[in-house]
Order: sequence, then C-alpha cells, then structure tokens
Amino acid sequence: MYKLVLVRHGESTWNLENRFTGWTDVDLTPTGVEQAKNAGRLLKAEGYEFDVAYTSVLKRAIRTLWHTLDEMDRTWLPVVHSWRLNERHYGALQGLNKTDMAKQYGDAQVLVWRRSYDTPPPALEATDPRSERSDIRYAKLPAEQIPLTECLKDAVDRVIPFWNESIAPAIKAGKRIVLAAHGNSIRALIKYLDNISDDDIVGVNVPNGIPLVYELDENLKPIRHYYLGDAEAAAKAAAAVASQGKA
Amino acid sequence: MYKLVLVRHGESTWNLENRFTGWTDVDLTPTGVEQAKNAGRLLKAEGYEFDVAYTSVLKRAIRTLWHTLDEMDRTWLPVVHSWRLNERHYGALQGLNKTDMAKQYGDAQVLVWRRSYDTPPPALEATDPRSERSDIRYAKLPAEQIPLTECLKDAVDRVIPFWNESIAPAIKAGKRIVLAAHGNSIRALIKYLDNISDDDIVGVNVPNGIPLVYELDENLKPIRHYYLGDAEAAAKAAAAVASQGKA
Repeated sequence: MYKLVLVRHGESTWNLENRFTGWTDVDLTPTGVEQAKNAGRLLKAEGYEFDVAYTSVLKRAIRTLWHTLDEMDRTWLPVVHSWRLNERHYGALQGLNKTDMAKQYGDAQVLVWRRSYDTPPPALEATDPRSERSDIRYAKLPAEQIPLTECLKDAVDRVIPFWNESIAPAIKAGKRIVLAAHGNSIRALIKYLDNISDDDIVGVNVPNGIPLVYELDENLKPIRHYYLGDAEAAAKAAAAVASQGKA
Repeated sequence: MYKLVLVRHGESTWNLENRFTGWTDVDLTPTGVEQAKNAGRLLKAEGYEFDVAYTSVLKRAIRTLWHTLDEMDRTWLPVVHSWRLNERHYGALQGLNKTDMAKQYGDAQVLVWRRSYDTPPPALEATDPRSERSDIRYAKLPAEQIPLTECLKDAVDRVIPFWNESIAPAIKAGKRIVLAAHGNSIRALIKYLDNISDDDIVGVNVPNGIPLVYELDENLKPIRHYYLGDAEAAAKAAAAVASQGKA
C-alpha cells in the first residue's frame, strides 16, 4: 500500500481579497504562512516521511511546500516543480473580484465559471498584460501550451499526463510523495484517482493547508482518504471554499 | 564564455557564536537572512538569470538559496541538493567555541585545524551523538562515506567528483548555474578551478552572502572572477573570516 499526501497552498493574498487568481503568481498571507507551517507540524507529529516533493511553479504553492518541509526539518528533500500542477487558468477573470462578478453577472454565471467542468471562463487576449505568454518561467513551452483560459477539464488534461509520466511511476518505485499545489490541480487529481463524475466533482472542495492523505493500492487505486488533524475544521474550511463567489 | 555564481550562505547562528559548525545543521541568523536577501537583490539588479540552482543538504545553504531566489522572483527554478556540497566536516570540534579552543590549544593549532590542507581535526566517534551517521538525510549513503572528520583535501575529494559528474556537464550544456554552499565546499571548488596550490589556498577566504562570479572559458577554465556589489565590503568580510579563531 502506498500513501500520497496532497496539500493545497495556504491562504493567498487574492484568496483574502476574493479575487480570481489562476496563474497569477500571488504570495501567501500571514494566515497562509501559518496554515503551511501547521501542515508541516501535522505531518511531523504523525511521523510522515517523504522521499520527494512535487509542486507547481507558482510561489503560493512553492512557499507552502517550503514552510511544510521546514517544519518537518526536511528542507533538503528533492523538489520537482511543474507548470502542470499550476492552478486552473482563470482567463479574463484573473484579478477580478468574485463578488463583483457575481453582482454583475449573477451567482449562477459565477458558479459556472468557478465550477463548470467543461465551460471555461472568457479567455485572455494573448497580448493582455495579464497573459503569462511572456513569463520567463514558461519560456521553454510552445506558446499554444500556455493557456489563455481553462475549465477543470482542461486542467485534468494537463495534470493527468504528469501524474502518469512522473508521479505515478515514482510512487510505484517506492517514493513517498508530498505534493503542494492548488485547489483545482488537486481537484483534477482527485477526480482522476477517485473516478468522480463530471457532475459530482463540482461538489468537491479542498481546504487550504490541511494535508489530505490518499492511501493507494498496488495499482494506485484509492483505498481511502482523510485529512490530517481536526476533521471538523477541515470540513468547515472546505465549506468556506464552496461558498466563495456569491453575491 | 560561461558564468558560474557561487554564494556562501549568510551568517549562521554558530558563525555568530564563533563555534565550529561543519555538518551540524544550524540555521541563519537574522543578519544571515539579510545577507541572503541582499545576494538575491544584487543578482537581480545585475540582470542575472539562472536555469538551475545547486546547494547542499544543510539548511543554512538551502535557506540562503531560497532567500536569494525569492528576491529574484525565481522560486520556481529547479534545485539540485547534494551532500557533496556540504561544509567540511569539523570532526570532534563540531559545536566547540573557536576562541576557547585557541585559548586551550593555541592559535597555531586552531589555525592548523581551520586551514591545514591535509591535516583533519580529531575525528568524532561514530557513536558520538553529534555524528551524522544516524541522520535520515544520509541514510542512502554507505556509512563509511559519511565523514567523522575532514581536512580541506577530503572536501576537495568529494566536491570535485560532483563538479565533474553534475555541475560541469550542466554548464557545458548551457545551463546558467547559481550554487549556494559553504566556506570550504566553495574553497574546494575555487582551488580546483583556479589550480591554487595546497599552501596558497590557506589564504583564500570567502565572505558570507556576497555573490562570487566566475567567468569560464569553453574548457571551464576561469578567465576572471569578481564579487558583486561593493568590492571593499567583500574584502573586509573576507578578512573577518580569516581572523576567526584567534585567542
């Protein structure tokens, strides 16, 4: 049996400001830093050890990983960064306020943008200053691989190849993995692992900074999963994520 | 022409307490954090870009790298950790005060321990609680590869294979490298690159947290090297390193 630990980054400045973030590289708030440290403390208290860490190329996830590893006294662990673990791209909504958008377009439209499986938000123009097409960290990617918007299906389509090519073989090779990423890259992984339907994934929310442990069988099929620490706090935090973006 | 940037970690708690550190995993002081951030600011101001970062498995170097990359907004760069870039092991002196040792054994003996090329300090017992032989980060190494003491020659003997097998090929493949490490792992590299004699390396001191740039020709032979920022400050900081450990 294998264990995989998933950690959604701590609260970011734009979580706090209730803005759509996507690939925008915002940092953690002081609360987010505390959440990240707490994830490390929980993992340490439970005796977790890892051989390799995975994260995105966005600093809210990277810094969450750093604080987690630091609390575990494991800053020396190898880390794999991949843009494929980035948050879902939020298109032309990136930077805009979720409540403002709800007032302007209605709760139903915002819920579609936030949670529809296959309807992406309006796309950014490639020339929009918010586009990541000129960002040096993606310089080696073909331009068409750098999204201008994504629905969750698009995120699944880029996360799962990375799971199959990098993460799953590492787990099968006996590597114990902690993965610090984002609400939607983690939901993409959960959907795939638990074979959740396109409809049901809408109701799955991942709280910030609480380690989510997946126990996997020899074929990497989930046996069970659970949050570390206070179960009630985890449920409450997940519900708070679900209620974002209402007018 | 290639460029390689070397950064000795910022001031550590045991630098400040004037204790022999070696492989003991002490953290940065607030001054050390500032030095590390300043290294990042200098590199950013001069427009340096990197493709990969190298560091040891000791947190004072890792954290120095993190702060450096953070200031450059390059937290997403791939990082290679290797125990071969660790500080020279200080044997049975680890944890002891440099001035106390100078009072007890004389300045000359301490200078031998600090700077002799091929005389190591007294060895730790493998069963000494200070020994790293039970440290999880070295668990995959054969016990005999985990030193109980090292002279600079021993450090050269473990650093240079890593240079030849990992760093040099990466540079020749066009990777721009920043390497955050330790006084003696950097001196080992400098001795090799600049072909410095066993006698002359005694007089080479590397200040904390000031980026040292090596320009290398196509065979990785140094053309020239220089510190970034205020040259006088770098010289003064190097002189301060040289004067440690006197009664």
